[in-house]
Amino acid sequence: MNKKILMTPGPTNVPERVLKAMAYPVMHHRTDEYSALFGEFSERLKYVFQTRNDVMTFPAAGTGGLEAAVINLFSPGEKIIAVSIGVFGDRFASIAQQFGVDVEKIDIPWGSGADIDAIRKAVRDEHTSILVTHNETSTGAYNDIREIGKLAKEKGLLFVVDAVSSLGGLELKMDEWGVDVVISASQKALMSPPGLTFISLGEKAWDRAAMSTIPKYYWDIKKARDYMKKEKPQNPYTPAVSLIAATNESLKMIQEEGIENVIERHSNLAEKFRIEVEKMGLRLFVQNGYRSDVVTSIDVGDGAARLKREMEELHGIVISGGQGDLKGRIVRIGHMGCVDEKMIDMTVNAMQDCMNRMQGA
Amino acid sequence: MNKKILMTPGPTNVPERVLKAMAYPVMHHRTDEYSALFGEFSERLKYVFQTRNDVMTFPAAGTGGLEAAVINLFSPGEKIIAVSIGVFGDRFASIAQQFGVDVEKIDIPWGSGADIDAIRKAVRDEHTSILVTHNETSTGAYNDIREIGKLAKEKGLLFVVDAVSSLGGLELKMDEWGVDVVISASQKALMSPPGLTFISLGEKAWDRAAMSTIPKYYWDIKKARDYMKKEKPQNPYTPAVSLIAATNESLKMIQEEGIENVIERHSNLAEKFRIEVEKMGLRLFVQNGYRSDVVTSIDVGDGAARLKREMEELHGIVISGGQGDLKGRIVRIGHMGCVDEKMIDMTVNAMQDCMNRMQGA
Repeated sequence: MNKKILMTPGPTNVPERVLKAMAYPVMHHRTDEYSALFGEFSERLKYVFQTRNDVMTFPAAGTGGLEAAVINLFSPGEKIIAVSIGVFGDRFASIAQQFGVDVEKIDIPWGSGADIDAIRKAVRDEHTSILVTHNETSTGAYNDIREIGKLAKEKGLLFVVDAVSSLGGLELKMDEWGVDVVISASQKALMSPPGLTFISLGEKAWDRAAMSTIPKYYWDIKKARDYMKKEKPQNPYTPAVSLIAATNESLKMIQEEGIENVIERHSNLAEKFRIEVEKMGLRLFVQNGYRSDVVTSIDVGDGAARLKREMEELHGIVISGGQGDLKGRIVRIGHMGCVDEKMIDMTVNAMQDCMNRMQGA
Repeated sequence: MNKKILMTPGPTNVPERVLKAMAYPVMHHRTDEYSALFGEFSERLKYVFQTRNDVMTFPAAGTGGLEAAVINLFSPGEKIIAVSIGVFGDRFASIAQQFGVDVEKIDIPWGSGADIDAIRKAVRDEHTSILVTHNETSTGAYNDIREIGKLAKEKGLLFVVDAVSSLGGLELKMDEWGVDVVISASQKALMSPPGLTFISLGEKAWDRAAMSTIPKYYWDIKKARDYMKKEKPQNPYTPAVSLIAATNESLKMIQEEGIENVIERHSNLAEKFRIEVEKMGLRLFVQNGYRSDVVTSIDVGDGAARLKREMEELHGIVISGGQGDLKGRIVRIGHMGCVDEKMIDMTVNAMQDCMNRMQGA
């Protein structure tokens, strides 16, 4: 097994404290001890989601959380808008389509965030909702959730945000910004191992959920909320206890640092990294104004595969290549979760070394 | 956090080796290193499933695995048989009904396994499939999968077995016994933390899956198989890497001991435990012939809640109470996975102590 540094857009490096919390003997999920842990954990999630709403947890990948949102909120034939700025925007739209939702998809050219006017033009009275990816890890661009939230409110749309890779890294104020539904996962900026997904619904979203006719069992959020609201909080089905113990520890770390400080750290490190990348003479793939503070994509042309390989083999730093049409053309470097200046410096130095070798070759 | 002994019907005690494997730094799931781990892990699963078929893994609770089976195999309106001998049999039937499958449910009185003639009588030509729970943790009874398998073959029924709490504890030979679909999970006899579910399909089941019309995305087993069949095995969505590393270690332990020896150990320990329970003058809840070798339920009348509480408080041994109609009436003691004679002795001694106190009170 490796001790490599993950500078990928998730899974991210998991702090020792979190790994240790995970390795404690498994507790049974129908005990007072577990209820105490799960109750504490769910409160911490609310802090990071910046919401007073309940946050439900499922053992699943983030894609499961997106599916849970679609299945609980919509009905077959319902007309919604899905904004896509990359692979994960496409995925969210595909999930909705797969369950019979009538999706009007707005495709923004990759490497940019959504233009608010493009969305405004697409919205019609028949649309009930809008799906938006906050941070698009496939391109390194992000969407302005606050601005889109204003439009959603103006148009009376239910606003559903995929924050799988942004929560705890980019600013996201669910209640203040009027986001109706937020979905996230454990393995990105939340610094925990993969395997948990989270979903939170505001009041308006719960009203919509009451009308949804898509069949559901495992993803039934009402049942999940009912179990969470018991005097001793529980889950309908066996929870991933060890992952909850792990994530409870990482959420505690975020609380200790303070969510505002965590966001500011991400912003500062991202800015530092971008400056260094441009100093190396490399081109940032995303246009200015839409560059995400949790992942930076760099257009390295034909060198992408080699750069990715040599970063790992020569420097023990795992970075990611492009997805979809960007395969072989860009590299993507994550700076989310457990990241500090030293790690950014190491990454920059390693990249410089690899670039020198490639130019020398 | 506790260091209590879990003598519950899952989650079960996780060996130190497994906890250590889980606590290694998280590897990225799109690396060669992960592909090697996942490939090895999937082969080990086949050994424990006693099958040559692929076994697909999803980050989810076992209930998710049951949902995956229903969603991938059936279509709305399809007529199937579901045999229920307790809470989990009811659950499997409910999941199928929830997705529009036309379920003929055979309800066997709790505390017994299914009577083969009762099933035979219920089967009609219109039925395509039969769902059966192997080990029913809610009652401590089990179903004779080999016998039901013969009937399923004779009647041309697709045979789907919920082996969540039996696999690695009760004998189950998927290929030899003609089981078409087996579902299991990590936290029972497989001695790992909860959060992974497994599903394996035989050839006939894959043919049925090709005809299924229930919408699916996260649970799409064809996509999961396609990713597993790549030159470097992967998963469509982020896998729960740490749990896979953990379960890979526990599967290795099962291989080291040998699956036949593991099954024999369970059988011997269960028999020993039942003899001791009856020596104490207590009544086994399940009728002879249907007693499971992974969980024993004991009818202790009004004393169930107190016995459960004092076992934990005075002896640090977590056992379970009854579910549904059996709440407050029985206790359930799991002896699955990482169990040895010493643990059985400790449990018996603790129970004897608690019973003495209760009779003295």
